[in-house]
Parts: sequence; structure tokens; C-alpha cells
Amino acid sequence: MDLASFIRDVPDFPKPGILFKDITPLLAHPPAFRESIHRLVEHFRDRPVDAVAAAEARGFLFAAPMAYLLERPLIPLRKPGKLPYRTFNFAYELEYGQAELQVHIDSIKPHARILLVDDVLATGGTMHAGCRLVEKAGGQVLACAFLLELGFLKGRERLRDYEVFSLIRYD
Amino acid sequence: MDLASFIRDVPDFPKPGILFKDITPLLAHPPAFRESIHRLVEHFRDRPVDAVAAAEARGFLFAAPMAYLLERPLIPLRKPGKLPYRTFNFAYELEYGQAELQVHIDSIKPHARILLVDDVLATGGTMHAGCRLVEKAGGQVLACAFLLELGFLKGRERLRDYEVFSLIRYD
Repeated sequence: MDLASFIRDVPDFPKPGILFKDITPLLAHPPAFRESIHRLVEHFRDRPVDAVAAAEARGFLFAAPMAYLLERPLIPLRKPGKLPYRTFNFAYELEYGQAELQVHIDSIKPHARILLVDDVLATGGTMHAGCRLVEKAGGQVLACAFLLELGFLKGRERLRDYEVFSLIRYD
Repeated sequence: MDLASFIRDVPDFPKPGILFKDITPLLAHPPAFRESIHRLVEHFRDRPVDAVAAAEARGFLFAAPMAYLLERPLIPLRKPGKLPYRTFNFAYELEYGQAELQVHIDSIKPHARILLVDDVLATGGTMHAGCRLVEKAGGQVLACAFLLELGFLKGRERLRDYEVFSLIRYD
């Protein structure tokens, strides 16, 4: 199945000149969504994944079925003010201003090997922050997995300290 | 399995006097997460579910594995500025100020029967907005499904026009 055929190009979003890759047609097509989840899971099936983590919100759409199928803990990485218990925090720079991710202090066991998941690898800023947060919380990054990768934005360079896997790649 | 034993009470979140029901221990326990998903899916297995929808972000954690297992389209209901294509919008009142949910105009087929999913039914404000948005987009609400329900907040009254199902109930 050509998963890329379920990705829709939307011009000028979120601002003029940007060609946005819209994953909602893939979500709307059960065989394509199923195949995406299966390919991601199969790639890591024999790896020592201790838990699956994802930053909100779209990352949850892929991480949750993967955690379900791999039978591993599902760890949400969230924006400030969302997690009720005590957290580790990691602040990072975005194109405009600062952002922060948080994780509960008891979510990640010491040296646990974490598979981080998101839908799209663009510049890699959010995923890089997620990796650093996992490490701050005492875990290890096993790999970063994506449905699709915008190669020309060089997210892999930003994530060069980590293993990166994606199902669809635009160069 | 007593799913309620995987819900953690966090006092004074998000503000003093509120006892927050934290679902992250359930997400962190694969058999409990699996059982939650299975019970939700089994309840609707023989019903005419045409698609599964959820508002970001925590709703995605349950809706995505449910859509996967039911082999139905997964429809994200999102906050403004997140969906790249043309949208239907529904604005609603929160305790402090206004909020809005959006859905792509091509996500919901005419008269499609939609199962809406979220983690927690509190006052029902967001779910009610999700139901109205589904209707505005031309769909029908089959039911609203939750992991847990805070009965004392009377969300069922807010959702009285719809079928409501929850796995865990606090009165």
C-alpha cells in the first residue's frame, strides 16, 4: 500500500509559502491507518522497547495503538498545565518564542528504553525536546519513529544523537 | 480487573479544592489500558459505528486504538489553528471564556453515525460541543464513550440528548 497517497498537500498552512502535509485522509482510511501502525510496530517488534512516549496531540494518534499492540506503557509528554502530578520539565526554543514539555516524575523508570513517536518529522524541535526530557527523567531514547519525514527540513540532523525511523519520506 | 485502581487522585489540580482523576497510571499499565480499550470496543462492537471521533488531546489516546480495532475512520476534533484544510467550527462556553472545536469539512459523511470518545466525562462541555460539531458537519451522534465519569458533575444531564457510556463511575 502506498501510504503517501493518503497524505494531502494543503498549500499556505500554517502560513503563506508552507505546503502542509495533512494526515487526516490517512486517519480516515482504516486500512491505511492500520498498515501505518503495523509497519511502525513491526519495525520495533524485536527491539527492547520498555515504553512508548509521545508529545501531544497528533503523536498520541500513533503512539496509543502502538503501545496497545506492543503491550508497553504509554507515556504522554504534555504542554505545561496539563499533567496533574509532579513533573520533569524541558523548555526549548521554537521559531517564535519558547515552548515546554512535561512528563510525570514517576512515568519513566531508571534507564528505561523509550520509543518516541510522532506523526511528522519537520525541523525536529519538538522531538528533540521530547528526547531530552526522557533523558532528564532518567530514561534512554531507544529511537524516534514517525509516520512521515520532511527530509528537506533536516530534522535528522537535529536528531543526530538518536535513531530515527520514518515510513514516508519527502526529500 | 478493577480499572478504578489505576486512576490516581491528585488533590488541588488544576486549582485548590479540585480532586483531579489522573489516568496516567492506567496508561502506564498495559493490561489495564488494554482492558479499557477492549471493554469500550466490545460495548460498541455490534452497533452501527461509521466512524470514531475525539477531541484533542487525551481523547486521542482512547479513540485511536478503538478506531484501529473497530476498523473505522478516526476523526480528530481540534482546537482552532490545528487543522489545515477547510473546517466546520463550533464555539462554546467554558467556565472561563470561550473555546472552539473544528473538524475538516470532508471528515464526516452525510448521516454518518459517529462514536465520540474521551477519557473523562466531567461537566460535559467539551463533549457536548463535539456532538454539536458532528451534527453541524452532517453526521449523527451514535453515542459518547468515556473511560471514566464524574457523576457528581452531572455531565449526563448536559448530554441528555445523546447516549452516554462510561467504564468507571464516581458518584
